[in-house]
Amino acid sequence: MTRRRTGRRPGDHSAREDILDAARRAFGERGFAGATLRAIAADAGVDPALVLHYYGNKADLFAAAVRLPLTPSESFAFLEPVDRDDLGEAILRLVLAIWENPATLAAWLGLIRSATTDDDAARLLRDLVTSVIIDRMGELLHLDDADAAYRVSLAGSQIVGLGIARHVLRLEPLASAPTTELISAVAPTLQRYLTGVLQ
Amino acid sequence: MTRRRTGRRPGDHSAREDILDAARRAFGERGFAGATLRAIAADAGVDPALVLHYYGNKADLFAAAVRLPLTPSESFAFLEPVDRDDLGEAILRLVLAIWENPATLAAWLGLIRSATTDDDAARLLRDLVTSVIIDRMGELLHLDDADAAYRVSLAGSQIVGLGIARHVLRLEPLASAPTTELISAVAPTLQRYLTGVLQ
Repeated sequence: MTRRRTGRRPGDHSAREDILDAARRAFGERGFAGATLRAIAADAGVDPALVLHYYGNKADLFAAAVRLPLTPSESFAFLEPVDRDDLGEAILRLVLAIWENPATLAAWLGLIRSATTDDDAARLLRDLVTSVIIDRMGELLHLDDADAAYRVSLAGSQIVGLGIARHVLRLEPLASAPTTELISAVAPTLQRYLTGVLQ
Repeated sequence: MTRRRTGRRPGDHSAREDILDAARRAFGERGFAGATLRAIAADAGVDPALVLHYYGNKADLFAAAVRLPLTPSESFAFLEPVDRDDLGEAILRLVLAIWENPATLAAWLGLIRSATTDDDAARLLRDLVTSVIIDRMGELLHLDDADAAYRVSLAGSQIVGLGIARHVLRLEPLASAPTTELISAVAPTLQRYLTGVLQ
């Protein structure tokens, strides 16, 4: 691996790595809700302010620790200006972009594989969805918590299943369907789950 | 385990088990398409007619060998009389019934877990979907093969994702949503994938 870390102090790399190691331990042992930035900083032997400086917030630190392809902050920055009626398509485009890059696809598949085979990983993913994604999506959609949770988990179920069918089972012609075709087929499903009539 | 196998000859149990063992080896080594009933019978040391007598056809033998909750024949016997416009709901009810029984849920989850973590299991599941399910669904829906394959894999992606969200990640309130609520939310998705406008 080549390292190009010009302009940083020599100690930075190891402090960042120490924080990520401490974060992985804390999330693994106490779950997303139970882990605190203060305890992670103490374990890494750094000031909590440095954790915030490097990783912004607990959700983005989690994303970095488990190598999520995109931090929640990045995702929501992309979704924030989108019209409510176009969110289904915007979310699908975001997900398809993650899957199109082999490195971020591998990270996404790793997360899904561990969550389907390991109870602790499943709990972590559930915690993250519950305490970050549903919360922020609820704000974007102007929904109360229970409604947002139901709608977001339905949309999430379609996204997880699509990723598995396309990239794990590689069901044809779904696996090699062009982006535009998938968007026509699946974006209306996500849009209906998020804002449509479900009863 | 208690055995209640009255009225059968003493040799039956072991012949059935020998066939299943041979089938698991054959499917594992050669995939669903490559395995033949003749080779499985030879490996088990029985006549091919006995394999057909016990398991009906290759797809149902596969279902028995990997302990699928329902054989393809049983599923299609249930779906055959259903009106084309009600297939989304009928398929979802079939799947929800599989998930409601702890034993068949465990078999379903086992299949999904192995397919998401093991390339051979993924290939087997893909083969089965391609050579049995898509074929029969195409007949039910009066679609040509390519269109049936696309529509069935889209519906399959939603079903796989729903099962994972509900029973592996246990996202609430989706995980404890009553059947009627789930049918209102998800059956229209399946119906649109199977018979609706996708472009």
